[in-house]
Amino acid sequence: MNYSVIVNKGGNKDKVLKAADNKNLLELLGEHNYSLDTYCGGMGKCGKCKVQVVKGADNITSQEKKLLTGKEIKEGIRLACLLKITGDMEINLQLKDEIVALTSGLKQKGEFNPEYRKKNITFEEPDLEDQRSFLTRLYDLISVSDINIDLLKKLDNVNKKKPLNIIYDDTKIIDIQKENNHDLYGLAIDIGTTTVVLYLLNLNTGKTEDSYSLPNPQQKFGADVISRINYTIDNPRGIEKMQSVIINSLNNAIDKLIKGNDLNHEDIYMSTIVGNTIMLHFFMGINAESIANSPFTPLFTELLEFKAKELGLKINKNGLIQILPSISGYIGADIVADMLAVNLNNMNDEINLLVDIGTNGEMVLSTGENIYTCSTAAGPAFEGANIAHGVAGIPGAISSFEIKEDGKIHLETIKDKRPEGICGSGLLDIVAEFYDKNIIKAGGGFIKNENLPEIHRQKMTTYNDLKAYCIVDAEHTVSGEEIVITQKDIREVQLAKGAIQAGIKILKNKIGIENKDIDNIYLAGGFGNYLNPRSACILGMLPRQLENKITQIGNGAGTGARICLKDKKAKLYIENLIDRVEYIELSERKDFQAEFMSSMKFGR
Amino acid sequence: MNYSVIVNKGGNKDKVLKAADNKNLLELLGEHNYSLDTYCGGMGKCGKCKVQVVKGADNITSQEKKLLTGKEIKEGIRLACLLKITGDMEINLQLKDEIVALTSGLKQKGEFNPEYRKKNITFEEPDLEDQRSFLTRLYDLISVSDINIDLLKKLDNVNKKKPLNIIYDDTKIIDIQKENNHDLYGLAIDIGTTTVVLYLLNLNTGKTEDSYSLPNPQQKFGADVISRINYTIDNPRGIEKMQSVIINSLNNAIDKLIKGNDLNHEDIYMSTIVGNTIMLHFFMGINAESIANSPFTPLFTELLEFKAKELGLKINKNGLIQILPSISGYIGADIVADMLAVNLNNMNDEINLLVDIGTNGEMVLSTGENIYTCSTAAGPAFEGANIAHGVAGIPGAISSFEIKEDGKIHLETIKDKRPEGICGSGLLDIVAEFYDKNIIKAGGGFIKNENLPEIHRQKMTTYNDLKAYCIVDAEHTVSGEEIVITQKDIREVQLAKGAIQAGIKILKNKIGIENKDIDNIYLAGGFGNYLNPRSACILGMLPRQLENKITQIGNGAGTGARICLKDKKAKLYIENLIDRVEYIELSERKDFQAEFMSSMKFGR
Repeated sequence: MNYSVIVNKGGNKDKVLKAADNKNLLELLGEHNYSLDTYCGGMGKCGKCKVQVVKGADNITSQEKKLLTGKEIKEGIRLACLLKITGDMEINLQLKDEIVALTSGLKQKGEFNPEYRKKNITFEEPDLEDQRSFLTRLYDLISVSDINIDLLKKLDNVNKKKPLNIIYDDTKIIDIQKENNHDLYGLAIDIGTTTVVLYLLNLNTGKTEDSYSLPNPQQKFGADVISRINYTIDNPRGIEKMQSVIINSLNNAIDKLIKGNDLNHEDIYMSTIVGNTIMLHFFMGINAESIANSPFTPLFTELLEFKAKELGLKINKNGLIQILPSISGYIGADIVADMLAVNLNNMNDEINLLVDIGTNGEMVLSTGENIYTCSTAAGPAFEGANIAHGVAGIPGAISSFEIKEDGKIHLETIKDKRPEGICGSGLLDIVAEFYDKNIIKAGGGFIKNENLPEIHRQKMTTYNDLKAYCIVDAEHTVSGEEIVITQKDIREVQLAKGAIQAGIKILKNKIGIENKDIDNIYLAGGFGNYLNPRSACILGMLPRQLENKITQIGNGAGTGARICLKDKKAKLYIENLIDRVEYIELSERKDFQAEFMSSMKFGR
Repeated sequence: MNYSVIVNKGGNKDKVLKAADNKNLLELLGEHNYSLDTYCGGMGKCGKCKVQVVKGADNITSQEKKLLTGKEIKEGIRLACLLKITGDMEINLQLKDEIVALTSGLKQKGEFNPEYRKKNITFEEPDLEDQRSFLTRLYDLISVSDINIDLLKKLDNVNKKKPLNIIYDDTKIIDIQKENNHDLYGLAIDIGTTTVVLYLLNLNTGKTEDSYSLPNPQQKFGADVISRINYTIDNPRGIEKMQSVIINSLNNAIDKLIKGNDLNHEDIYMSTIVGNTIMLHFFMGINAESIANSPFTPLFTELLEFKAKELGLKINKNGLIQILPSISGYIGADIVADMLAVNLNNMNDEINLLVDIGTNGEMVLSTGENIYTCSTAAGPAFEGANIAHGVAGIPGAISSFEIKEDGKIHLETIKDKRPEGICGSGLLDIVAEFYDKNIIKAGGGFIKNENLPEIHRQKMTTYNDLKAYCIVDAEHTVSGEEIVITQKDIREVQLAKGAIQAGIKILKNKIGIENKDIDNIYLAGGFGNYLNPRSACILGMLPRQLENKITQIGNGAGTGARICLKDKKAKLYIENLIDRVEYIELSERKDFQAEFMSSMKFGR
């Protein structure tokens, strides 16, 4: 028996899906590329995959009753992962996939000299004096010496009296086009754990003509890399599924870029891919299990290059997929691209600190000569996970927070929408302001109610039996419930802050420098770019004395990937970078444990 | 309606074929890889595709009556190309496919340093101190830096605690084998217009372990390259058929080599292919039409390298197919391989003449520095075509001929079998002896009967109204008919001799040398190797004063191909050779026409 499921989005009917009896709703939505928040991987634990059922729900489960508020239940909110389809349905999706992703970046360095070029050629008429084969003539015209079997057959079949477009690199012919006046295009793709960003570059001009971002659809298998790896271990063909959802979503995104820019898929001849090591394994359909367990050995970290048709990415089938190299299981190609974006390949006497904060925190400390790097679990707190009212960077997320002189709260939300929750930068601001305004202690605990000024004391409340502070009262929120920060939320920030600060300390110790020796701090990553550096400095996550040396570089990974698309020499720069990098594994270092413990305190 | 056709070969039942009503017998045999002589391409003109019908023939055609003798008709001999199957049949095939091919060659030069190698490796156990990815470890162990997507997945799935065999070249991983203790093997393949030879080389030791030869199955589409090109033009999917018959036959030959040497197809990782330019086009499934017509432009002459799986050749699917470069439409990779075999890449002060005589005649004249080459239609006379009793080099072919002092004939046949016809070397001997013993004049005509000694006069006869000389009388031949040489046969030899001699003259003129300046003459090719150099010198095809400087190099093309398998540097030698070669097109040169006319005379 097949049922119809009407899916509304933003108040409009978006699609009608067909579903078999007893089909899981989250699975159905996933198969049609609707991406819901599922930090627990669809296990019915995180309570994030909310949908509003307008018509046709089965009976609510006891687990949903635990995870949803009475008001939500009354409004027909259900958890998609726990809902089985037993009849025709109509649902409203919340616009969670409108995540505001970082598509801007540093002004790109590097020359414009792409690996693939396009040339319009016409064969001279052969004569007895010049019996060179057509292939020899082609090689001579564009100075290459290699062709594949399919293109040789293509050359056999084209009219050699008419002009041809030849796509080629330094050594070989990439494609032969009969008629096509479009420019050559490339895609730089940054596959983040949470967000994926695509940049469309014109490789005739070097200009970035468009970009597109989408949530990583693998989130339905788990919010963080470890739960995704577990999914691939626990589920038959799990790795194939993990690969196909990302490839499918990328192909949908490519469709949209193509359509919006009046291009054909065949016009895109290159794609440079960055991401963390695990995302790259998944993208390739390669198991990442060995990265999850000590000693965290990846299958590959090298630069990989393939034909697009080998991976099923919808660009020209002869196009190149270039996967940038990683350094270790937890320092991926995204960080390598960051390094390229901030020019660490240009050796000089400066000491540069690069911090990429997303789901993980990766730190890079570079002297002129050597580069040291390490990775810590920053925790998904800043992505909204494990935080009572945490949300991703969606419209309505509290992204900035300040307590004025008079004790009144001033906050900003993304797109000025009615508050819906707290995203990472808001969370950091809140905790920094709490610490700065003596609402919490250096140890993280709330100041006793009786010692708080009246204006704050009246905000103190409880949430699920936890001490909490009310950030927005119920009547001003989307849900009609208070948005609070709990004592546990503050502990989560503490853990993340401690890990990052301790990682930086280990790197400084390795080189034997102090904070004052650092010339520049670059912040990258989904969270690193949105946080308020002042807040990070107040809490001690970054050195307070260096606040004015901090630059937020936007999507450094995307910038690095674009540099690689535009300049074939970038591969050499990266090789040079990687040769100089030493990776420091923190997980079993006693000095890291000690630094971590002492870095948990705020303000130092 | 399906009929059964019993095929007997060498007196034994070989196969029973199924045929639809009205199926052409030649086509049916071709589809089952029985290769009959068909110089006319199955057009019912050459009368070569004889079979003996034991049972079930349809009525004989008038065309067959013209082409067959009364005795043949009485014995049930029919022409397969003109016979339609209209009922169950039984036929005897003549053993024409037992052509004695040249599988020997010069002692090979070149070092033993093959492009592909095999190494047994074991991964060290990873630990926290050494988090290098498995791919990095593999790259480090064998000093490469490239892998393809399939092999990366293979590496993902193998047990990394067990030893692995890695096949690799200078830059990339070619294959990963779990268990296989066989050595690495390669095939050198020489695709001649008439005969195909395969050599099986052990690439761990460099030794040629076996060889196999077979008739080129494309002969059923035409004996010479032009009639085959015409077949591809005139028949739908003609080029695909032309390609598939050679690939299928090669795969059958590979099966036999594999079986005979206790190997697996997967053990063969390289295959170097040589042949004339048109054979190489056909092998690749590429149209050769443009080579048939002035200005004879090939689609490709370059070195081509592909994975075996792209062509369907039954060696390891990751194996390399290497097609050696040609020089022009009529100077193919076989001649380039000849040059390599006689070491023309080693520049010294010697002047070397290389002559490859098969269906065509290719000449190469090399000074220390420059190499000049040209090609002439030697005519298929020496392959048995257009000669009254011409046959290929089959058992029973007259291969050597001498007229003793007393005027008596002494002849030899291949494998000492009862005479069946005259092959190329026998033909050349006969005409040379006729000229030497004053049976024919320098102009080629028979001396008038009355001026011949009695012993020869009594041999003079007629054949199809042509003046002829009886070489073997009827009672000593297989067919029970006289084997003769006709006046027309002598004209055919004259044309071939004239063309070769004129080609050599043009090359000498180009450099400005005389016969005495030539240090070595190398003879290669299907016919070049079997001819008696003395006969060639008597007739003036080769300079008489250089008779003692002639070396017959065996299958030089095969030798060159084997050198390439064994020594990866051979590609550089070939590049160097090709850079120095100048091709001279004879077809519209007036000086060639003049030389050709004057070279037709025997003895000068």
